[in-house]
Amino acid sequence: MENFEFSNPVKILFGKGQIANLKNEIPDESRILLIYGGGSIKANGVYDQVKEALAGLFVIDFSGIEPNPHYETCLQAVNIIHSQNINFILAVGGGSVIDATKFISAAACYKGADSWDILEKHTSIAEAVPFGTVLTLPATGSEMNSGAVITRASDKNKLAFASEKVYPKFSILDPSVTFSLPAKQIGNGVVDTFVHVVEQYVTYPANALIQDYFAESVLKTLLLEGPKALQAPHDYDVRANLMWASTWALNGWIGIGVPNDWATHGIGHELTAFYGLDHGQTLAIVLPGVLRVLKEQKAEKIIRLGEQVFGIYNNLSHDERIEYTIQAIESFFEEMGVKTHLSDYGLGADAVEAIYERLKSRGWKLGEKRNITADLAKEILLTRL
Amino acid sequence: MENFEFSNPVKILFGKGQIANLKNEIPDESRILLIYGGGSIKANGVYDQVKEALAGLFVIDFSGIEPNPHYETCLQAVNIIHSQNINFILAVGGGSVIDATKFISAAACYKGADSWDILEKHTSIAEAVPFGTVLTLPATGSEMNSGAVITRASDKNKLAFASEKVYPKFSILDPSVTFSLPAKQIGNGVVDTFVHVVEQYVTYPANALIQDYFAESVLKTLLLEGPKALQAPHDYDVRANLMWASTWALNGWIGIGVPNDWATHGIGHELTAFYGLDHGQTLAIVLPGVLRVLKEQKAEKIIRLGEQVFGIYNNLSHDERIEYTIQAIESFFEEMGVKTHLSDYGLGADAVEAIYERLKSRGWKLGEKRNITADLAKEILLTRL
Repeated sequence: MENFEFSNPVKILFGKGQIANLKNEIPDESRILLIYGGGSIKANGVYDQVKEALAGLFVIDFSGIEPNPHYETCLQAVNIIHSQNINFILAVGGGSVIDATKFISAAACYKGADSWDILEKHTSIAEAVPFGTVLTLPATGSEMNSGAVITRASDKNKLAFASEKVYPKFSILDPSVTFSLPAKQIGNGVVDTFVHVVEQYVTYPANALIQDYFAESVLKTLLLEGPKALQAPHDYDVRANLMWASTWALNGWIGIGVPNDWATHGIGHELTAFYGLDHGQTLAIVLPGVLRVLKEQKAEKIIRLGEQVFGIYNNLSHDERIEYTIQAIESFFEEMGVKTHLSDYGLGADAVEAIYERLKSRGWKLGEKRNITADLAKEILLTRL
Repeated sequence: MENFEFSNPVKILFGKGQIANLKNEIPDESRILLIYGGGSIKANGVYDQVKEALAGLFVIDFSGIEPNPHYETCLQAVNIIHSQNINFILAVGGGSVIDATKFISAAACYKGADSWDILEKHTSIAEAVPFGTVLTLPATGSEMNSGAVITRASDKNKLAFASEKVYPKFSILDPSVTFSLPAKQIGNGVVDTFVHVVEQYVTYPANALIQDYFAESVLKTLLLEGPKALQAPHDYDVRANLMWASTWALNGWIGIGVPNDWATHGIGHELTAFYGLDHGQTLAIVLPGVLRVLKEQKAEKIIRLGEQVFGIYNNLSHDERIEYTIQAIESFFEEMGVKTHLSDYGLGADAVEAIYERLKSRGWKLGEKRNITADLAKEILLTRL
């Protein structure tokens, strides 16, 4: 196991009816900005539950956070925080709303000239407006971590930042609010969760048994519960297990003390920035390519994944175990309704070229060995046409 | 899954050499009470490492915390905190030292007439002296939870308390400091860790897949690494996995959202209070009895444990799967050098009677169904003669 320093202070309120306990978690004298996305929380009753729980408190709404939240929109919220003396934020939504809230909370206290530096230059964050979340879409784990991804619409830049100052003070996870989610969002969420685990697990062995077993625990939960969630949308236990799995996939505890990859996300973000694909879709495309192109570097962990999660091991060669494991992942993504090739989304070699040029200009070297250059990313994408 | 509210803010510094980073975690102007047990930290170099890391800070030593720490000893430390204006405590040791420190930190700020009320009446704790820990013995999980068990020597009362105010601010886990531990302490620690998991896992099914898989992850780690730790005391990776497993067995995350038992601990504490057995020894005696006497109530989870952790399932009846699983647990404890019957420690029916009388006077009803009365505890112990 590698050395690490880590803590995760987020308080979780889990279960049916927990939104009613919101007021206990927010200081009485708060001036609250309520941040959400489109209209879904009004359609499914979550908005009303939240407003009822906040009765008597000062609350201003800020709606319209986009999927892959825009920097430009976040700046509007920062202006409201300043003009209305907001001192607490409540994010109600999925990863996009929570990520936007993290950036807004940091940008509102940012003393530099341009808050885009938080994303581009990773300038350090000294302070942030405290916030809590009500999660409506299990996928990104943002409800229990300190990272966020923001897109500048003007030049299609999608960048990440992280800071201990932007951990939510609390997150409310009520699985029953996910009953009304469209199948597409459940599928994307399961794929996102799956890939979060793989980014922290399918690298090279580090003799970290707890982290490996925990990673496999989350993956096995997804395999069991993901398909059921599509077939029986109102099964509370299934939604509870999926919601809790997605939080654990990226709350930090399975990724500390072990090497991390994150190349699939790095490449996938560009696909979203350029072509507007859903985040989960980009991951379903890129991951099998990363695993095939880097199969020898990742061989031991791919084989372990195949054996522990998919039961792939009897009477098979080294190469078969690797290939069958990757095929099993692709089949699972397809079973969850998420297509795994560029052509499924109307993209071809032109798109690969555009991503290649962008990655070349960034000069990043991705992956647990920092060996995925723009050239290798191109090779990866060309396996996914 | 059951509803829950939970957070665990403890910062973990894990790995070789982390003691050198102590000073970064303690405020500069601190007046520190350094609490430890017997002389082992002086013999193995940990004391010197700690003192070097604290160079230049105000530090007073307080040694002599017993295994199963005494209330009477804790009160002496409280006096020093008051007389020396101590504002930070550093606990260096295993569960006993850390548990004592939790009680001392709470008792030093206690406004009531008698701090024993914290244990006996569970009076609420408004404040506690902040503290960190340097863990030297993986076993109790105290380094990352908010509970403690204290014994009043005068009347052999061993009682527990818990409070969010007594989470360590940080805990340093350097696996290499465990190389010098005697085999007996490793064995006891593995048994203690194993039973912590079972108390939170072998109850009745609650459809909580993450918690179940995580519980099994810790148990599988113990089965793989426990025997290796006895055979190769200087294997860093083995010690790292064991240390991290023991923390996860009782940091709260596997026990939330599911029923909890804790009867084995409740009965075991009395065996220690009356006869001075090591905590791990008492658990190794009591657990198989609890599982056998309550085998139908716990059937589904015993069978799941047998299948997922010990691989017990092919061509076996319901009763065989249960009995073989319990036997596998007993064999593992014995393999770890911890005997599993009262007679192994020179105890017999008289001891059972004494425990029975004590439990009857307490009036407790233990276990996940609150159905383990003094009578049932007697029945359990009589299976362990």
